Amino acid sequence: MADYSLYCFVQSGNAYKAALMLRLTGRDWQPVWVDFFNGGTRTPQYRAINEMGEVPVLVDHGEGDLTLSQSGVILHHLADRTGRFGPQTGAEQREVLRWMLWDNHKLTSYIATYRFLRKFAGKEGAPETEFMKGRALAALKLFEGHMAGRDWVAADRPTIADISCCGYLFWPADFGADWHDYPGIAAWLDRIRTLDDWAPPEALLPSGPIA
Amino acid sequence: MADYSLYCFVQSGNAYKAALMLRLTGRDWQPVWVDFFNGGTRTPQYRAINEMGEVPVLVDHGEGDLTLSQSGVILHHLADRTGRFGPQTGAEQREVLRWMLWDNHKLTSYIATYRFLRKFAGKEGAPETEFMKGRALAALKLFEGHMAGRDWVAADRPTIADISCCGYLFWPADFGADWHDYPGIAAWLDRIRTLDDWAPPEALLPSGPIA
Repeated sequence: MADYSLYCFVQSGNAYKAALMLRLTGRDWQPVWVDFFNGGTRTPQYRAINEMGEVPVLVDHGEGDLTLSQSGVILHHLADRTGRFGPQTGAEQREVLRWMLWDNHKLTSYIATYRFLRKFAGKEGAPETEFMKGRALAALKLFEGHMAGRDWVAADRPTIADISCCGYLFWPADFGADWHDYPGIAAWLDRIRTLDDWAPPEALLPSGPIA
Repeated sequence: MADYSLYCFVQSGNAYKAALMLRLTGRDWQPVWVDFFNGGTRTPQYRAINEMGEVPVLVDHGEGDLTLSQSGVILHHLADRTGRFGPQTGAEQREVLRWMLWDNHKLTSYIATYRFLRKFAGKEGAPETEFMKGRALAALKLFEGHMAGRDWVAADRPTIADISCCGYLFWPADFGADWHDYPGIAAWLDRIRTLDDWAPPEALLPSGPIA
């Protein structure tokens, strides 16, 4: 058995955050596919694993099957366990958490919801979709302002804040973004791509039952 | 001068989270009113204070005017400074962060947006408003399931996770909730009201310029 199991599916950028961290830190892990689009996160069995009804869920077999949900908790846990990509001072701790909270509340939340409505729910152009599009674009604009002229989100090196914020951003076509309009974000995503062992969501996460 | 300044306005449940923590821990603090409804968080001056363009912002004058944004960062900082309402073990740390992230991503985010559209933007019944209503109700239902049969959100005592999750919940009429339908949440809110020195948002936050 691997050291970690990750409940996930390939369309989830939140699951990708955890998978990318496992990959970048060279962990021995196995995916457990969740059939989200057929209600896989709504079953009583899944709710017993995570009452929040979400992926990702990480099971750390080396710590007595410690079961963690919320990508931000998983990223902090793996940073502690591996000594990699974590904040190292009080100031860095605050800055990393600040951007991870903003990512959860705005960047990821708005983009993921807009993408879901547009790509998976067949609601392109509907009023609720346009509303989420406006919020997603505002978040991207703010993030571009932050990334212009700096290399990494929250420190002078890549941290779990970068891994959190990039969760959905390797799918720009899904939410109609052209990175030429966001040069700061584009350059930062290129920097992430050059991290040792980086891989895109499709290379890390399953799209169906695992043989 | 007070020990802390808090940029805030009375309609913000996120600002209330910080104000309530300051109140419950007996801090000496002063509010700085932000004219949100007339673009007060969008000015270059305000963006220089917080590039995220949000309240709350806490300035800790006792730490060289350390300036913090994101309610979750502010709550953690005040818990560290006061030794109150913080997690005390690794497991509590994870559980507190887990619920604060969920609150930021779902409970507060969906309720605040739904309330904004319904109460302040005059869009009651619009498709985007109904969409956010559905998400808000789903978050409340999940939270009721969590609170039924337990006293506090993330530990056997009140923590900053409780202070975070209750941010918008003293305004049920604004988002059309009847707490009789949510007995677990109702009992928990009553528990919060009985904490020493508890006060509602209107008693802590300014609604206009401060004389």
